Amino acid sequence: MRFVDLIEKKAEGFSLSDEEIRTMITGYVNGDIPDYQMSAMAMAILQRGMTPHETAALTMEMMHSGDVADLSDIKGIKVDKHSTGGVGDTTTLVVAPLVAACGGTVAKMSGRGLGHTGGTLDKLESIPGCRVELPIGRFKDIVNEIGVAVIGQTGNLVPADKKLYALRDVTATVRSIPLIASSIMSKKLASGADAIVLDVKTGSGAFMRTKNEAFELAKLMVDIGALTGRKVSAFVTDMDQPLGMAVGNALEVQEAVELLSGNVPASDPLFEVCILLGEQMLLMSGLAEENMQARKMLIDAVKDGSGLKKLQRMVEMQGGDASYLTSENMHKLVTVRRRMDVTAAKAGYIHSMNAEKIGTAAQMLGAGRASKTDDIDPAVGLVMKVRRGDRVEAGGVLADLYINDEKYLDDAVRLLQEAIVIDEEEPDERPMVYGLITK
Amino acid sequence: MRFVDLIEKKAEGFSLSDEEIRTMITGYVNGDIPDYQMSAMAMAILQRGMTPHETAALTMEMMHSGDVADLSDIKGIKVDKHSTGGVGDTTTLVVAPLVAACGGTVAKMSGRGLGHTGGTLDKLESIPGCRVELPIGRFKDIVNEIGVAVIGQTGNLVPADKKLYALRDVTATVRSIPLIASSIMSKKLASGADAIVLDVKTGSGAFMRTKNEAFELAKLMVDIGALTGRKVSAFVTDMDQPLGMAVGNALEVQEAVELLSGNVPASDPLFEVCILLGEQMLLMSGLAEENMQARKMLIDAVKDGSGLKKLQRMVEMQGGDASYLTSENMHKLVTVRRRMDVTAAKAGYIHSMNAEKIGTAAQMLGAGRASKTDDIDPAVGLVMKVRRGDRVEAGGVLADLYINDEKYLDDAVRLLQEAIVIDEEEPDERPMVYGLITK
Repeated sequence: MRFVDLIEKKAEGFSLSDEEIRTMITGYVNGDIPDYQMSAMAMAILQRGMTPHETAALTMEMMHSGDVADLSDIKGIKVDKHSTGGVGDTTTLVVAPLVAACGGTVAKMSGRGLGHTGGTLDKLESIPGCRVELPIGRFKDIVNEIGVAVIGQTGNLVPADKKLYALRDVTATVRSIPLIASSIMSKKLASGADAIVLDVKTGSGAFMRTKNEAFELAKLMVDIGALTGRKVSAFVTDMDQPLGMAVGNALEVQEAVELLSGNVPASDPLFEVCILLGEQMLLMSGLAEENMQARKMLIDAVKDGSGLKKLQRMVEMQGGDASYLTSENMHKLVTVRRRMDVTAAKAGYIHSMNAEKIGTAAQMLGAGRASKTDDIDPAVGLVMKVRRGDRVEAGGVLADLYINDEKYLDDAVRLLQEAIVIDEEEPDERPMVYGLITK
Repeated sequence: MRFVDLIEKKAEGFSLSDEEIRTMITGYVNGDIPDYQMSAMAMAILQRGMTPHETAALTMEMMHSGDVADLSDIKGIKVDKHSTGGVGDTTTLVVAPLVAACGGTVAKMSGRGLGHTGGTLDKLESIPGCRVELPIGRFKDIVNEIGVAVIGQTGNLVPADKKLYALRDVTATVRSIPLIASSIMSKKLASGADAIVLDVKTGSGAFMRTKNEAFELAKLMVDIGALTGRKVSAFVTDMDQPLGMAVGNALEVQEAVELLSGNVPASDPLFEVCILLGEQMLLMSGLAEENMQARKMLIDAVKDGSGLKKLQRMVEMQGGDASYLTSENMHKLVTVRRRMDVTAAKAGYIHSMNAEKIGTAAQMLGAGRASKTDDIDPAVGLVMKVRRGDRVEAGGVLADLYINDEKYLDDAVRLLQEAIVIDEEEPDERPMVYGLITK
């Protein structure tokens, strides 16, 4: 079987067999298939698509290209969540401890931020002492003891994805829905979770620019779950504005502490998405039988403080100083040289907020990385003071910037003002959640 | 301008600008654009196509990627012909001398055979002493003196095509019609012809498997001609069976000599295609005003022997021994160790003849190359004894094999028998020429 024949098969719109997909992934990882053939195949897949069956086979082959975490030592149903990259998305820091406080088991391997999107590991590391590179044995012990831990990927997880993603990035093949689905799902499956709740973002700050694409991706990942024997459900949610108000690592930790302390209204969009994700995680764990019951458990864990305590305990077990994680002390995490308001040039309604540009503005302040090896500044970033639909007066505050290095400050301010469009007309209401896909 | 953005543009179905196509070709030739990006672009082009304008721009950039032959020293309108690879296609050896005998100027740079298709250079080299690697000055002198010469490409002609074709070959992107058109036309334009007659083959032995594809390619190449200021016309002809009866280098020279000697009936398909191509070449050269006049000139050049004399003279000027090129002596070119008939297993009508398989059978006997560096045996090959629609009896001769090396003989015989399908029903008539595209 020559690989060029497989490229031709896909280029003509046919499906690849499981055996052919195996040949492709093993050959690519071991170097028998050169980049120039794999990129032609990736473009053929982008153009011609893959069936759910093909995508599931690809996911399994990618998963088996490296180590697969064995979490069988951890008791209970291990439930995970994953968001497809967002801006101001602090859900993991809220929902993981809440679910654990409700009796769930959250053994989560997470990622770092890149470009305009943040990463949970960077947020955790903004807490002094907190470590995310733990030996797998210690990770399992923590989960068994307190029900939750969040670490970086251990071992050689899904090397096929690392190699393929780097190639897709430079060959305009990132946007292939089957390739995105298999990339996400192979890592989730290799991380050892039994059940996974996905949050697929759509809008200006997301990979999936249209709702249709987002639903296609969500449905495909749920299909992959069914075909590979895992419970998977997927929300499609809005990312046409940042999910939370804070964009920056410690700033997002601060927002998570506020949420877990019960200091935000129930209507807060970040809080609402956390509760929705948490509901599914409790249902999948068998800890609740229906949504309203799960919702009540989660809200109780906010009210009685057990969720916040779980976060503090987790950070402590991961070597961090949990004393920062209170409403009183958390401001110490975000001590910066300068703060500055960005204000509205005219009065009107906030018509739209480009989440990608806002994320990029925070990155320019030092909160994010342009390339994988960049350092980040944990304290800097911005806190939005308005949301879509809000009324502002001229000179009213749009965002509060936290600044240490002013090198790209002017660019960040300009981008932020460009990102927030003010209009005389009140914009239409838009839902935060577009739908939930389950099997 | 990052090349990945150009790949994305094409992947989403947009047209590339002239400037972007320039960036692509110069970047690829000088190594700034790596193979893995170019192959993704080639696949995007295969899937999304190119407009005639884009294809013409690509053709011009490819042409200017290397040397361009300056044939301005040659008097008159230089007219060229090109066939898109066929089996048993000896047209150049017939039509080039015929057109020259009628007063035309044929300064032709030709290619070698690869795979199941033959090449004019290999056929010429089967004549003892005949050289095809001549200095360009000598080439021009011969054309000025006798009106015709056929040599290999000189200098560094279209390096972009050499590099891109090698990449397309291993990435299943050979079949892109705009890429085929720009590959052919860039070489033709760089070879310096003023007017070009193309013969686009369709059927089992051709690149273009369907008539629609062949017409698309033909039309696109004629468009490129118009957009780049050359006269181009294109026939679409049948390659569902070998064009001539002979498949093999000296065997095809022998067939050309027979045609030029007037020893075949006017209904012979190879002869008919030669006359059609020749008519267009004479019309484009301004030597005839309408088809019937051109046809008469060509047939007269067969009858009075001036066409054969022109071929003999050309071979002589290129260092060859022209004494082989007569009906009496030509058999000496095809002296082999063994000859063998392949016979019909049953009686019936010749229903179909797979030209690709027949070409491959000849290649197995040593007449063609599997890879560019293989040696060929000029004397071996096969002569078909039947054509599509002929009636054969069981045991009747289908082909006469000319053999020196018997290593793959059994395979060649098996392939040949597989290629020739005998059926009880008489097959439908099928035209040899499907159409002519002109501007």
